[in-house]
Amino acid sequence: MDDLTQSQFLGGRVTAWQPARGYRAGVDPVLLAAAVPGTPGQTALELGCGVGVASLCLLARVPDMRITGLEIQPSYAALARRNAAESGAALEVVEADLAQLPAHLRDRQFDHVFANPPYFLRDASVSAADPGRDIALGGETPLADWVETAARRVRPKGYVSFIQRVERLPELLRAMQARLGSLQVLPLMPRRGRESQLFLIRGRKGGRAAFRLHAGIRMHEGDTHTRDQESYTSDIRAVLRDGAALPFPK
Amino acid sequence: MDDLTQSQFLGGRVTAWQPARGYRAGVDPVLLAAAVPGTPGQTALELGCGVGVASLCLLARVPDMRITGLEIQPSYAALARRNAAESGAALEVVEADLAQLPAHLRDRQFDHVFANPPYFLRDASVSAADPGRDIALGGETPLADWVETAARRVRPKGYVSFIQRVERLPELLRAMQARLGSLQVLPLMPRRGRESQLFLIRGRKGGRAAFRLHAGIRMHEGDTHTRDQESYTSDIRAVLRDGAALPFPK
Repeated sequence: MDDLTQSQFLGGRVTAWQPARGYRAGVDPVLLAAAVPGTPGQTALELGCGVGVASLCLLARVPDMRITGLEIQPSYAALARRNAAESGAALEVVEADLAQLPAHLRDRQFDHVFANPPYFLRDASVSAADPGRDIALGGETPLADWVETAARRVRPKGYVSFIQRVERLPELLRAMQARLGSLQVLPLMPRRGRESQLFLIRGRKGGRAAFRLHAGIRMHEGDTHTRDQESYTSDIRAVLRDGAALPFPK
Repeated sequence: MDDLTQSQFLGGRVTAWQPARGYRAGVDPVLLAAAVPGTPGQTALELGCGVGVASLCLLARVPDMRITGLEIQPSYAALARRNAAESGAALEVVEADLAQLPAHLRDRQFDHVFANPPYFLRDASVSAADPGRDIALGGETPLADWVETAARRVRPKGYVSFIQRVERLPELLRAMQARLGSLQVLPLMPRRGRESQLFLIRGRKGGRAAFRLHAGIRMHEGDTHTRDQESYTSDIRAVLRDGAALPFPK
């Protein structure tokens, strides 16, 4: 992983080194961070933090949180540490497999756990030449294991937040339903009237509220893709450029 | 069940006797029927047909289908037969428990199976004085049993369609995912930007397409409820008043 590029998020509030090739953070970790309902003084654990973009975005919005990022790949964990140090952010990075947490993490619980698990179904993905990209995109850990670790590490009444592709909604919902309550889905629609490709989901440990399916949030204005022009809706632009929160509806 | 009233659906295209008290068909069976993708000459099975409103609406839209309605309660089954006879519709009514089908039904497969299972969670419901209302609203059969019977009775590549309250989406999705493929959810939103209370879901026997979450369909215009005025959106009005189809997006 020699070639690195530096990317900016939240209108320059967050800067992160990431590999020039392989998995690269896009808007998804930024949206995930915006949806985590963290408040000053609270703690959070990010599972599979990569180079740290989601955690750094959350810290940019709520600087008084203390966040721990878990990353299995040494080269990504090293970049997350470097990105945190260069931005002076209170991000602790732990290099470990989420299915085999070190003892010092197994002793702790967090107000929030959040994750952007790898997107492509193992069976559907082609093994990539770059093992970093392969793990980040193809994943080797079933979603149920992500949920299991999240549910164990979140405190009672704490929140677990994921962003994921719609294809995996049934799998993720089933896993979360088995371990968490008060589930809510917030679909992200590319444009008005277009089906969702992506969704946010939140559960609460010990929650007892009924399942909720919120109206979808539109990502883009207009009916067609205009490549050369930024077309984000004002709500999404406020998240991506100004670091606004993306709260689930009350 | 002495007191009956006669209700009209689809702008008068369908007329049905139903009990004056207890469970009464509203818009939900009409929306369900509109979403079943039946074509002339095809067969369909409705599980829990009540007085037959959904099946009669589907026959009103596609007269050349042959539909069988299954109903556990003798008084509702008798009304469904009467409603079919008075409208001259090709609806066969079988009085049976969906978990214990008679042999002549166990031998058959259908192009479509559809259902509007009872809405209220058993634990949350208060036992009603009227046993008919109790079964229709409270239900005694787990959703997984509805799905199991539907999956057995639909032909390979045939469709299974349900309408249900959003609270039970996780339960229904889990059951359908275990037995059917190519699942699609079509949320029904009361108004623009309001979370769904109701959804349509469709699966295909042997289907292999990825899960899809469609943009929600709005039921009502405007931002608030206006009691004295019909406020349905034009798409929904076309379904409820003119008998139009409500197809899942391509």
